[in-house]
Amino acid sequence: MSYAKQMLDSYSRTFKVDSGVLAATIDALNDCAQACTADTDADLSEQNVTEMVKCIRLCLNCVDVCTATAGVTSRQAEYDANVSRPLLEACVAICKSCGDECERHAHMPHCRVCAEACRRCEQACRKLLDAMK
Amino acid sequence: MSYAKQMLDSYSRTFKVDSGVLAATIDALNDCAQACTADTDADLSEQNVTEMVKCIRLCLNCVDVCTATAGVTSRQAEYDANVSRPLLEACVAICKSCGDECERHAHMPHCRVCAEACRRCEQACRKLLDAMK
Amino acid sequence: MSYAKQMLDSYSRTFKVDSGVLAATIDALNDCAQACTADTDADLSEQNVTEMVKCIRLCLNCVDVCTATAGVTSRQAEYDANVSRPLLEACVAICKSCGDECERHAHMPHCRVCAEACRRCEQACRKLLDAMK
Amino acid sequence: MSYAKQMLDSYSRTFKVDSGVLAATIDALNDCAQACTADTDADLSEQNVTEMVKCIRLCLNCVDVCTATAGVTSRQAEYDANVSRPLLEACVAICKSCGDECERHAHMPHCRVCAEACRRCEQACRKLLDAMK
Repeated sequence: MSYAKQMLDSYSRTFKVDSGVLAATIDALNDCAQACTADTDADLSEQNVTEMVKCIRLCLNCVDVCTATAGVTSRQAEYDANVSRPLLEACVAICKSCGDECERHAHMPHCRVCAEACRRCEQACRKLLDAMK
Repeated sequence: MSYAKQMLDSYSRTFKVDSGVLAATIDALNDCAQACTADTDADLSEQNVTEMVKCIRLCLNCVDVCTATAGVTSRQAEYDANVSRPLLEACVAICKSCGDECERHAHMPHCRVCAEACRRCEQACRKLLDAMK
Repeated sequence: MSYAKQMLDSYSRTFKVDSGVLAATIDALNDCAQACTADTDADLSEQNVTEMVKCIRLCLNCVDVCTATAGVTSRQAEYDANVSRPLLEACVAICKSCGDECERHAHMPHCRVCAEACRRCEQACRKLLDAMK
Repeated sequence: MSYAKQMLDSYSRTFKVDSGVLAATIDALNDCAQACTADTDADLSEQNVTEMVKCIRLCLNCVDVCTATAGVTSRQAEYDANVSRPLLEACVAICKSCGDECERHAHMPHCRVCAEACRRCEQACRKLLDAMK
């Protein structure tokens, strides 16, 4: 069981959203941030870096947005839809763009793995947005 | 002149938005993140911490969202309204909530200063959202 | 297999350190950052917040140091012992302090889980420091 | 006056180190993180990206370490030399490397500005290390 899930389960409080959905989203956000950090470094190691510039920029944005979203999603006590909703929407958008760009380079194993992490994170954020309705 | 402005001016590229507006927003985001980081620590030093719990949580969320928004706003080359717009909206919302809560404790100098940083950041993000239209 | 490990395995390059040790450290760093983020929020939910102030501050420092260490450790291509070594030492020190403080509150499930994440991270960083010699 | 200075002055507590030195360091750390974030993006816009790869990697590490150091330095209440000292040393080391690399590209205005931010941050961290003795 991930630490995100263990930590949510250790609270006595109840959440507006199922803790399993919350924990799965937090895990997907952290996984995606890690994959994008590593993919940036792998992209920079490619011989043809020029072709990887867009991928690097999207990965850097994806790290920033996923990290913030993981933090805010972990603080459910001051949950505010006016913050969480647009933040998750921004996260869905950057995970979609970054996943699309990584998939274009799916012949490079690091981009294939990163694309998968982005897709999973995009889906997890969409699922949480649905659960928040 | 701030480093954000100097760096934007050092680019040969042209931006979709006036570089002065961009730099002012980035500065306001970084200032707000710093003020909220420091305010969290100051809140924790108050005798009546229990009354500061909401303020601390909002400050922590504000740091996360402002930091991510500063990063994404600094990467104008892969500008994508589908990411930047909701991210700035999330930032406006958390700066508004955090500024309101800090203003409630404006008799504490640290919360008064932090409220000001939140207000400026909220306004700067709104201005950038307008300029992006 | 974690994304950190998958990403490291997808590189064609060889690392100065065994990729299994690197990936285990990165995973432990990210887990610890997540546990400390969640523990901060859980601490703030406790009735006796005043007794949790030290724990909150240590958790906040632990998040910052673990996040930076995970980022730098993920960029092995520009590996520099003059940066990585003191950074890992700072991480060992904060994980030790934070783990000790969380253990003092081990009767609270969230602090018990967080203490475990800090211990694992401390050990993983020590192991990587040894492997880097 | 920067928000870092205003916030430190708003505390009733006294610090182990002069608040002017602390605030100057925090400002230099945040400035350096911002300059390196922007320089990464500017480097990626250069025609000859391949020659900028090392600079990009060092800038990314510099952002991570400066951000963490700014956070920890802002939380003086739980000051711990075992954490702060190696963290500041890691920061000195990465600012030195990143400043050196940026200086090699000082014909590019963005790298010249970034080199200056790295030099200032390196000096500020050294000064704080001295003041902490």
